[in-house]
Amino acid sequence: MPEPLQATDRTRFHRRANRGTHDRATVDAILDEALICHVGFVADGAPVVIPTAFVRVGDAVYLHGSTANHMLAATIAREVSLAATLIDGLVLARTAFHHSMNYRSVVLFARGRAVEDPEAKAKILAALVDKMAPGRSTACRLPDATELRATLVVELPIVEAGAKIRKGPPLPDEGDDARLPYWAGVIPVSLARGEPIPA
Amino acid sequence: MPEPLQATDRTRFHRRANRGTHDRATVDAILDEALICHVGFVADGAPVVIPTAFVRVGDAVYLHGSTANHMLAATIAREVSLAATLIDGLVLARTAFHHSMNYRSVVLFARGRAVEDPEAKAKILAALVDKMAPGRSTACRLPDATELRATLVVELPIVEAGAKIRKGPPLPDEGDDARLPYWAGVIPVSLARGEPIPA
Repeated sequence: MPEPLQATDRTRFHRRANRGTHDRATVDAILDEALICHVGFVADGAPVVIPTAFVRVGDAVYLHGSTANHMLAATIAREVSLAATLIDGLVLARTAFHHSMNYRSVVLFARGRAVEDPEAKAKILAALVDKMAPGRSTACRLPDATELRATLVVELPIVEAGAKIRKGPPLPDEGDDARLPYWAGVIPVSLARGEPIPA
Repeated sequence: MPEPLQATDRTRFHRRANRGTHDRATVDAILDEALICHVGFVADGAPVVIPTAFVRVGDAVYLHGSTANHMLAATIAREVSLAATLIDGLVLARTAFHHSMNYRSVVLFARGRAVEDPEAKAKILAALVDKMAPGRSTACRLPDATELRATLVVELPIVEAGAKIRKGPPLPDEGDDARLPYWAGVIPVSLARGEPIPA
């Protein structure tokens, strides 16, 4: 069983009464669907946010990159915040005030740890290509020892984390607003895959 | 003319020799296409990253929310990093090592400032609904004085900022790798809008 997720003082930034959850399965599903995340760390006392690919394996998410990567270096043994967000819809109400978006997001907090074991790194990098295209790890050459040494993998455990979800139609406009002659509803949006382009 | 963009010590985290640019038009185009951004700030010495809607108007980007919003409060007169990222493709090479993504991202650094002037706030909130659906600000009721007072708008000037772009096919696999019997190329991805669902 994974550790139960923790709600802490800083998870409040990603909370809203009726939209927040610390359900692990919900968190995992969002992490597994999101192709990229945004990683936040502190450099010289100020915040830095950088987008990057990632993958969840078991009870942690993993970042990777070159051993010269500045962002990764700034996450090892340091506090990190990671957010992964899926946009599901544009919510148009009769009033500008009630416009919103449908989305599913996860925010987690952890300290980064470099994964040293080559077998563990290989497994994580295989999971990463499988996330991009199912079964891809059996349809490409996996990293050799030199490539593994050139790749830094950073682990962030999924413990202090939560999800936030908004779905469904706009909040109903009330009174006179409900009778305004404007269209209201949701424009669904999703990340669509196009026709593959061979190299 | 907008101020020229600044490359600074901390923009190095979002730099890579052949993929970085400080061209303002490139930065603006990415900010205008991205529906959400991820905002990073420091709370109790540790980083926090939160997703949120945003809009660019002229030489700044704007966040908004309830006057009780914890994230917004943490950005006013404080250092903020904001990242907006568009995913354009999954890049599959014959080797796992050369897998990548095509993307366009902007990372900026600024100090937040609360916009107090009701007319300025109204203009920004109109731009925000127009970003969701072109012309929407003329097809809904705009905020009244009470709604404007209930909405906090935070400005982040676009000065210390840069874009990073990867496009095109995978790096060519070399030597024996080039002869591996695996498919290589790009699977395009894009945020697609579906059939509107009336409320």
